[in-house]
Amino acid sequence: SGGTMASESEAQRALQYEQTLMYGRYTQDLGTFAKDEAARLRLQEGDTPRPRRPSELLEYTQGRCGPCRVCALQCQRFLISKVGEDWVFLILLGLVMALVSWAMDFAIATCLQAQKWMYGGLDTNVLLQYMAWVTYPTVLITFSAGFTQILAPQAVGSGIPEMKTILRGVVLKEYLTLKTFVAKVIGLTCALGSGMPLGKEGPFVHIASMCAALLSRFLSLFGGFYENEARNIEMLAAACAVGVGCCFAAPIGGVLFSIEVTSTFFAVRNYWRGFFAATFSAFIFRVLAVWNKDEETITALFKTRFRLDFPFDLQELPAFAVIGIASGFGGALFVYLNRKIVQFMRRQKTINRFLMKKRLLFPALVTLIISTLTFPPGFGQFMAGQLTQKDTLVTLFDNQTWAKQGLSDEFEYLGILEAWRHPRSNIFITLVVFIVMKFWMSALATTIPVPCGAFMPVFVIGAAFGRLVGESMAAWFPDGIHTDSNIYRIVPGGYAVVGAAALSGAVTHTVSTAVIVFELTGQISHILPVMIAVILANAVAQSLQPSLYDSIIRIKKLPYLPELGWGHHEKYNVRVEDIMVRDIRYVTLNCKYRDLQQVLHSTKMKNLPLVESAESMILLGSIERTQVGALLSNQLSPHRRLLTLRQKVLSEDGHRLSDSSIRFQINTETSSGSPARPALRKPLKPALKRVPSSPADSPPAGTADHTGIALKSLFCANTSAEPTEAQAVAYPKAKRVRISIVEEMILGDKMTPAEILEWEEQQLDQLVDFSSAKIDPAPFQLVEHTSLHKTHTIFSLLGLDHAFVTSIGRLVGMVSLKELRKAIEGSLTGKGVKVRPPLASFRDSTASTTEADTTALRQLWDRHQHHHMPREAGPGGDDDD
Amino acid sequence: SGGTMASESEAQRALQYEQTLMYGRYTQDLGTFAKDEAARLRLQEGDTPRPRRPSELLEYTQGRCGPCRVCALQCQRFLISKVGEDWVFLILLGLVMALVSWAMDFAIATCLQAQKWMYGGLDTNVLLQYMAWVTYPTVLITFSAGFTQILAPQAVGSGIPEMKTILRGVVLKEYLTLKTFVAKVIGLTCALGSGMPLGKEGPFVHIASMCAALLSRFLSLFGGFYENEARNIEMLAAACAVGVGCCFAAPIGGVLFSIEVTSTFFAVRNYWRGFFAATFSAFIFRVLAVWNKDEETITALFKTRFRLDFPFDLQELPAFAVIGIASGFGGALFVYLNRKIVQFMRRQKTINRFLMKKRLLFPALVTLIISTLTFPPGFGQFMAGQLTQKDTLVTLFDNQTWAKQGLSDEFEYLGILEAWRHPRSNIFITLVVFIVMKFWMSALATTIPVPCGAFMPVFVIGAAFGRLVGESMAAWFPDGIHTDSNIYRIVPGGYAVVGAAALSGAVTHTVSTAVIVFELTGQISHILPVMIAVILANAVAQSLQPSLYDSIIRIKKLPYLPELGWGHHEKYNVRVEDIMVRDIRYVTLNCKYRDLQQVLHSTKMKNLPLVESAESMILLGSIERTQVGALLSNQLSPHRRLLTLRQKVLSEDGHRLSDSSIRFQINTETSSGSPARPALRKPLKPALKRVPSSPADSPPAGTADHTGIALKSLFCANTSAEPTEAQAVAYPKAKRVRISIVEEMILGDKMTPAEILEWEEQQLDQLVDFSSAKIDPAPFQLVEHTSLHKTHTIFSLLGLDHAFVTSIGRLVGMVSLKELRKAIEGSLTGKGVKVRPPLASFRDSTASTTEADTTALRQLWDRHQHHHMPREAGPGGDDDD
Repeated sequence: SGGTMASESEAQRALQYEQTLMYGRYTQDLGTFAKDEAARLRLQEGDTPRPRRPSELLEYTQGRCGPCRVCALQCQRFLISKVGEDWVFLILLGLVMALVSWAMDFAIATCLQAQKWMYGGLDTNVLLQYMAWVTYPTVLITFSAGFTQILAPQAVGSGIPEMKTILRGVVLKEYLTLKTFVAKVIGLTCALGSGMPLGKEGPFVHIASMCAALLSRFLSLFGGFYENEARNIEMLAAACAVGVGCCFAAPIGGVLFSIEVTSTFFAVRNYWRGFFAATFSAFIFRVLAVWNKDEETITALFKTRFRLDFPFDLQELPAFAVIGIASGFGGALFVYLNRKIVQFMRRQKTINRFLMKKRLLFPALVTLIISTLTFPPGFGQFMAGQLTQKDTLVTLFDNQTWAKQGLSDEFEYLGILEAWRHPRSNIFITLVVFIVMKFWMSALATTIPVPCGAFMPVFVIGAAFGRLVGESMAAWFPDGIHTDSNIYRIVPGGYAVVGAAALSGAVTHTVSTAVIVFELTGQISHILPVMIAVILANAVAQSLQPSLYDSIIRIKKLPYLPELGWGHHEKYNVRVEDIMVRDIRYVTLNCKYRDLQQVLHSTKMKNLPLVESAESMILLGSIERTQVGALLSNQLSPHRRLLTLRQKVLSEDGHRLSDSSIRFQINTETSSGSPARPALRKPLKPALKRVPSSPADSPPAGTADHTGIALKSLFCANTSAEPTEAQAVAYPKAKRVRISIVEEMILGDKMTPAEILEWEEQQLDQLVDFSSAKIDPAPFQLVEHTSLHKTHTIFSLLGLDHAFVTSIGRLVGMVSLKELRKAIEGSLTGKGVKVRPPLASFRDSTASTTEADTTALRQLWDRHQHHHMPREAGPGGDDDD
Repeated sequence: SGGTMASESEAQRALQYEQTLMYGRYTQDLGTFAKDEAARLRLQEGDTPRPRRPSELLEYTQGRCGPCRVCALQCQRFLISKVGEDWVFLILLGLVMALVSWAMDFAIATCLQAQKWMYGGLDTNVLLQYMAWVTYPTVLITFSAGFTQILAPQAVGSGIPEMKTILRGVVLKEYLTLKTFVAKVIGLTCALGSGMPLGKEGPFVHIASMCAALLSRFLSLFGGFYENEARNIEMLAAACAVGVGCCFAAPIGGVLFSIEVTSTFFAVRNYWRGFFAATFSAFIFRVLAVWNKDEETITALFKTRFRLDFPFDLQELPAFAVIGIASGFGGALFVYLNRKIVQFMRRQKTINRFLMKKRLLFPALVTLIISTLTFPPGFGQFMAGQLTQKDTLVTLFDNQTWAKQGLSDEFEYLGILEAWRHPRSNIFITLVVFIVMKFWMSALATTIPVPCGAFMPVFVIGAAFGRLVGESMAAWFPDGIHTDSNIYRIVPGGYAVVGAAALSGAVTHTVSTAVIVFELTGQISHILPVMIAVILANAVAQSLQPSLYDSIIRIKKLPYLPELGWGHHEKYNVRVEDIMVRDIRYVTLNCKYRDLQQVLHSTKMKNLPLVESAESMILLGSIERTQVGALLSNQLSPHRRLLTLRQKVLSEDGHRLSDSSIRFQINTETSSGSPARPALRKPLKPALKRVPSSPADSPPAGTADHTGIALKSLFCANTSAEPTEAQAVAYPKAKRVRISIVEEMILGDKMTPAEILEWEEQQLDQLVDFSSAKIDPAPFQLVEHTSLHKTHTIFSLLGLDHAFVTSIGRLVGMVSLKELRKAIEGSLTGKGVKVRPPLASFRDSTASTTEADTTALRQLWDRHQHHHMPREAGPGGDDDD
């Protein structure tokens, strides 16, 4: 005892495989060894790792233009090897997304122009005009809703909440498929083409992610591409940045916004990827506009031309702060309203039932109401109803002051600005009507089941609110505030920029909207007002409501972990022991099948802890519920019953049958999608690496008793940290079905029900053989003292959904996402009461819990002393310090 | 077996303390319980948690203006409770740092003006002018170096590498103290005041962090402030953002830059804090300039006035790309040069020995050389030597084109621009000379042992390089490139902006320099060129050299973890089993003291794994080396020898002595800095919470045999996840010293050396009693299959420096930072060879390792089967599937 362990374990292993020697060398000097190994492998590369290629080469070289073909092959191989590189992937992703974004913008612009053209062409008859104005969007939205519903209902909505969940490590089915991609792109184009107050940002994040997933699958056809969960998540994070970046031509803002809305912890190395892809994408997006002669050169999407020398006065800052605070309240109200509308629609059973039957009625109805209200000759004249979203923004960011100081005719409303003027009203009333109407319209429109986001509508409302404040300021201080000789008039357009950033920041709980507006307008001169307003808006909104995306996550009941707010000191003082579940079921190493059955009946946990014994409670690993079920069903399977029966009755025949059963197992296993031989299906992929190619890799020199273990080990292939759930589920089912068929076929059931029952009882009393089960050998462990803050950090960092709490190897409890969520919400919602950390006052001497540790350790120690070396159990009196 | 565990453990605990009941309630319904508890505690708040206050209140209320004072006290208490809030802290931090930054800028400007004034005043005599020009900076730099050396040598250099290390969780001593703060502020002011090519950005990150640490300590005097490691790290991260933000008045760039240079994984919730503090700080910093009448309103630091309508042509992009790529090479060269200079200075033993004696000679010498070369009437006339760094930047970002197209007299060099003109030279030569000279000067100057950064000098060089390319382009295309009717001339200032961002991005390996230049210049119109250049520069520089900060980290041998580059697929395929150390020493639960001694002699590991037994190898926890040493020295302590002696000789006296020994222990423990009663020293702090205040908290109803455990538990108080190393070290030492004194005092040694030896041998044969040792009950565990990529992620996420590798509870190896570093560098440095993942080709069928798992599990299972239930060891033949 107390010696070296490596010698022992190495000795065990040396008997089994050759690799052990390499491990030894490897740990000695990794750097040099790696280089040697690499050089050796490079030398061999032509032949050993890819056994099929040489033969191909051989064939070609025998032909006439052999050298040519060899060269072409080598080029091809070089290209293929490069295809897997990250930067190729990111460039392709950027390119594709820029094209998609540009094409969609083009299609949307065409749709909107068609509506304008119809509306303009029918100006002889108001009723016809109205019909055209209303029918056109209704048809488009209804088509969008129907198309999405039929093709892929997952494409509905923003997509950012789902991406947030996916990036946390949760697998959402069908969210990243080609079908959803098509549904989202076409649905979104139609929805935005209708002119409803909907946005394209959120859906673009989703589209970019789907694009990345599809591209990665496509590139993997060419091989050289390591499919890996961690890498996929990194690529998805970059894709989110691309989505925002190419939607607004805002690479920096895109990266930051996507980080803020989708991540809790962000790997700085991904940042790079995001920047690269988003910049490339934004570049291509804007270059397309130049090539299409829309623009002379690459500029911002909503370029402003505010003066540079004196953008704003210091004394205007309070007005900007007011915009920020009001936007904070407004943003919270928007989120609240949006949620209430969804909940109302769900709760009203009669409406609901009616709408469920006629799914397309709700979108059509909402579109009808909104487009009726914006009809320009009708109510729309009071709210600039004829402007599209883009035109509205352009006019709101306009450089001029609309409300003139006394001289009302000094300024001509030119071009699209005309829409804001009304002979019997003034600009303030128009703006207020616009804000109020658009506010509820946007909140309502974003609940329509079509692919749509809320960012852009909110952005427009914010800009209008900012403009309102700006115009008021301009009316209040006609000659500006500055006291020096120069007159610097107030620029209401600057206020509009500030308002847009503040309100969109408040709704999404992000600060990066500030960066987005700089990139959108191409001016950064208002940086301080924008930052102040955005921060104030965030502070207000975050203390009132969750972000729009978190709100949707809650509505959709996606698995989530709430953020820790700031200023909540309790979280540092609540500990795991306060929130953990102590009453958990577990599996012991020496338990019987009956115990497994009991455990399965008494708990719904997806992962069961495996402990050494009920006395020691030493945690050995965790085992999935499905695995326990498989163990049990395997033990009670008719197949085994058959075997027993056979063994009892036909003792000489038994040998043959058990042979066939082994062969049969191999069969089952190949059919249940084992990863061992996928080469047959994918000829392009150099998956041959996966086939045992060197002698060291093949199963150890075959003796009869090894075969069983080898087979099992194939089933256990996924004991790694990232198990694929699909396999775990697929295997027992496939096997069971097969077995029952085989059994019925060959034998028929020769046992009576009573006999079966008896046999099953007997089987249940046997000890469990875990060797065929998939065990996670290192489930995540926490200690009782770990603070809530740290637990939250670890859970969100590693994307855990449960962790076991241990004390010196002993299992004492478990914390899952549910407990953590409860604990955080418990400490967050109790705002009014100012929740004190429960039990915090009792804890500081830490005498209690540590004592428990000590006692536990002593127990363990005592047990060992008595078990292993009773001869040495000396007098307890001499070590009493 | 297989039942509920909570009932058992609860039964054990219920005997010991009352709290157990609460745990039960708590887990049932945490939310409501928390609220109840909070309400109850609020009711009690006046009296129980702060037992001293009520008596004070009582005294006051007895006086005349009692109500008044009660009110004042309540106000005070309210303020104190608010002081701990994050936002108060962040506002204070922002305010202080803005003041520091502004004051330093003011002092630096004064210093530089004094030099200019001296230089200008002495223009009658060139020699005197030269003396003044050279002496002034030499004196300042020498003073700065000497002052820093004497007060706090930790203040030398940038500080970003150290902050990166600290934010990784490593404790660097003396890096965040008041002394270092003073040394850094004064040293930096003098260094920058000398006009050497040094920067203030890096040191400002350090200054802000020190400011945060000091502020947090200061605020904790007022209480209401939970001191917590996690919180401190969060605050330090925010402080880094403030440092950059208030240095450049660039809040967004500051936040991003600080994230990129200090973090590997970034918590998005910190982002918020950083933005808040940095914005506030930048705001105050700029407002101070307005109040000081330096500026009319808040604008950018280096405001540019490029035209907005057509910032650049699409066809200029290749030129920007060239700037990016060249900057990438330049940046790598700068890092290389800087490192070589440091290494050269270290290697030259004779120079070194001489310089070590006269520490101030090196700074003086370097300053002398650099200032001689920049002397304006001398060589300085060819490199605009008379301009300060700030003036240089202002001129380089100038809006006009310097190299005129044919008409050389069309443009007048006005004001400070004059410096760039030379009658016998042209602007291209001047710029080239400037770039070349400044390049090596900056690389040399930043090795001087004064507080200084390299960002600003590099930024200036980059701007000059960009200007050079811009002027060349302007000379090449005198009428611009655009083919339409409008003539848009090329703007060389825009090239300077691009160059500055690209070169500083290349040296620091950051993308956020792009954002910093936008904020510095107040214009974002060149966003695409800047982004393209920065990304290309990064791509080139990252593939050639580490970042400047990582380079310094390596030179200084700080504990670090290299970044995973991108495009290295190997990292997904190298696994923990390839890099882990298998041959590790461990401590078993049933080992003897002799084994401990052996382990201590045979390994240098700081943390030793504690396993159940050498056969089972089940990992129970880890124990620090110092703890093992303490156990051993305690066992062999003269004190225990004494006790034995006493027990043998004076059996009736022994009782009294052991009593006194217990009393003595209590004494030792109080003196060794236990956290139990700090209230005596800090009267302002409501540390009384820490003292047992409610009956439930006091040690369980005192019986004699509990005392020992309680005492031990006090020593074990830090078994929590964040042990404070200082205590662990302090305790055994203090105790040992005390004991030997006491022993000598009372008894003198009555044993002969031979007897002592015999006694010690006897003692070493006893079983170890771990109950007094501090054991980390949940050290971090990895599995053999964990990929290098994931391991890196986990290590950098959680700031680990070692992790044990387990397989179904069994310890099989260990990975420390060293192995990980080796593995990453092994796969990174072998660039030319394109290192293949060693052993990757053997692994894919995963048969081998899993088999080992299965075998191990089977062993464990067999052992249990035989040990615990030999009655059931049925025939192994019937479960062979």
